[in-house]
Amino acid sequence: MVTTTEAAEVFAPQRGGNKVSIVMFGGTADKFIPLGVLAQAGAAMGMEVDIFVTGFALLAFTKERHELPFPAEFAEMAPALAEGMARAKVAPWEDMVRQAKELGAHVHACSMMCEVMGLTLEDFDDLVDDVVGAATFLQHAEGGETYFV
Amino acid sequence: MVTTTEAAEVFAPQRGGNKVSIVMFGGTADKFIPLGVLAQAGAAMGMEVDIFVTGFALLAFTKERHELPFPAEFAEMAPALAEGMARAKVAPWEDMVRQAKELGAHVHACSMMCEVMGLTLEDFDDLVDDVVGAATFLQHAEGGETYFV
Amino acid sequence: MVTTTEAAEVFAPQRGGNKVSIVMFGGTADKFIPLGVLAQAGAAMGMEVDIFVTGFALLAFTKERHELPFPAEFAEMAPALAEGMARAKVAPWEDMVRQAKELGAHVHACSMMCEVMGLTLEDFDDLVDDVVGAATFLQHAEGGETYFV
Repeated sequence: MVTTTEAAEVFAPQRGGNKVSIVMFGGTADKFIPLGVLAQAGAAMGMEVDIFVTGFALLAFTKERHELPFPAEFAEMAPALAEGMARAKVAPWEDMVRQAKELGAHVHACSMMCEVMGLTLEDFDDLVDDVVGAATFLQHAEGGETYFV
Repeated sequence: MVTTTEAAEVFAPQRGGNKVSIVMFGGTADKFIPLGVLAQAGAAMGMEVDIFVTGFALLAFTKERHELPFPAEFAEMAPALAEGMARAKVAPWEDMVRQAKELGAHVHACSMMCEVMGLTLEDFDDLVDDVVGAATFLQHAEGGETYFV
Repeated sequence: MVTTTEAAEVFAPQRGGNKVSIVMFGGTADKFIPLGVLAQAGAAMGMEVDIFVTGFALLAFTKERHELPFPAEFAEMAPALAEGMARAKVAPWEDMVRQAKELGAHVHACSMMCEVMGLTLEDFDDLVDDVVGAATFLQHAEGGETYFV
């Protein structure tokens, strides 16, 4: 069973623009950096930010945090990237998403994939606001910038 | 030789919004689930839906249906995912795209990649409506939601 | 240190539509084909085109051009694809991006990832116009088509 809260409660008011909607599908570790950056940058500029998490990316938002694989082609570059991130003092992606949320962003888990993976709202950490369907996400994303990560 | 039908015939009338345009590029099996879901959900809500298929994703739309690889990093999770899809009674992606088409969605094959891969409209199954260029797709996508899967 | 030029100088004037903004993140060789095609097709149609390069994709724009890996799942198809590209006389992606730039497109390197990877504007080849932040890119992309490649 999937718990779905009323979308109207959790989506920001629709203004037809000045909005960033991100489908977070990619489950490899590298893709969570642009997720965090786009969410944080958009929210910091006063844009509405909504993240719709689906596919293997859902595993990164569970309480029992899964270790995310690095893309096979770039696995050997992972240590240098981590070192560069630390040197440049880049916040971990969770912190960037959390900052975005403090500025009004919302994170939604895909109801269909939750059912496929046997996950409910209780299985996610506090970054996830609710479980909603793709139709609700698409309807809300209208008029704004949309990215499939 | 690539057979290109007149775009005006097959694209839905342009209304400047309420529209979802998807570039379907990813050729791994997992990416066809969000393709089906976004297309089906958008069409079910009365949105115009256009899918522009390019790259290795074209192989999934040929009559001689190619077996799609699973992403290398998640290959071991493929059986559990398939089992979850069956348990949650999620329709195969082809059925979701077909339902979207019954509600007005269109599927376009990228003319350039068709030429690169030696494919013509006759090589595709009936999900593909026509072969068009990227410029036509981009022009039509204006004013709507756009995703690169 | 990252050199950042004034965004106002290099972004095309904002018209609220008729615009294509691409986040170029994917670092595998195959993704540079749709990048080139979308950029070239958009620019050829008179659309504003902005490319925001980040992640491993930055390595493809350095003077010391890095060899890009092919996605692990499709590595064995790389030779056939290269042959098809040659037969169809498809221009290399660099040429397509260059043509787009001659028609007004701009290429921006992500300031955060430049810092992470220790790159400055001087490290890039002449395809890159400047180094800007994600917030600037997001702000400029409003009202147009947006793709995350």
